[in-house]
Amino acid sequence: MFLKLEQASAGSRFALSDVLSQIPWSPQGLVAAIALQHDSGEVLMLAWMNEAALIETLQTQRACYWSRSRNGLWRKGETSGNVQHVKEVRLDCDGDALLLLVDQVGSACHTGRRSCFYNVIDGDEVVVDGDPRKVSA
Amino acid sequence: MFLKLEQASAGSRFALSDVLSQIPWSPQGLVAAIALQHDSGEVLMLAWMNEAALIETLQTQRACYWSRSRNGLWRKGETSGNVQHVKEVRLDCDGDALLLLVDQVGSACHTGRRSCFYNVIDGDEVVVDGDPRKVSA
Repeated sequence: MFLKLEQASAGSRFALSDVLSQIPWSPQGLVAAIALQHDSGEVLMLAWMNEAALIETLQTQRACYWSRSRNGLWRKGETSGNVQHVKEVRLDCDGDALLLLVDQVGSACHTGRRSCFYNVIDGDEVVVDGDPRKVSA
Repeated sequence: MFLKLEQASAGSRFALSDVLSQIPWSPQGLVAAIALQHDSGEVLMLAWMNEAALIETLQTQRACYWSRSRNGLWRKGETSGNVQHVKEVRLDCDGDALLLLVDQVGSACHTGRRSCFYNVIDGDEVVVDGDPRKVSA
């Protein structure tokens, strides 16, 4: 299926159910999911989805991930209110990564920073970009 | 180490070697790496790095990944010329994902499309965004 998509011209359409059935889930049943703020383009976080999380995300238009630490569905913002309203979901060429265009309420990061990618490598040092704030993810 | 970074205020600096030694590599020795076009913000691809790939990327300022299919270092663009000049590398809050700001020469995707994320979920269909072109990654 992903080979067919590779060769398809712009605008070609395929049944979602056929595509989902061919996703090469990891041995743990997961794919990586990147969350991007839809208007600013800021990369907010990287998390993981299993099939149930992806289906729930598509149905509810709110990001739902798989928490590897808690070993369960993670409805982003369920306790903090920092939900992600999902505008668009994209799959990559080999189907093992997702890109979510979202509207992030509040912070994506559990440290209270807007994005999780605040550790910048600068020569032989790492510089922290942004102050922490007490919030739960 | 990542807990220290979480709590650090903006501008705090830490030794890169201390941070690298604490990266929670997967059982396969990998972390996910997102490549982003540095000026347009387009998400180009998601790939994987082991420690050697990350160190080579930092030293050469050209993206080098770990190919899980070929089981070896993957110097992006080595055969196609579609290299990625690396402008900045960021680590996320728990250290298991990297964000690379790159200048992509040509296409990131082996299908010849600029980005690998060309499969857009639209209701119960998947729409292909962009025509393929024959190139090797």
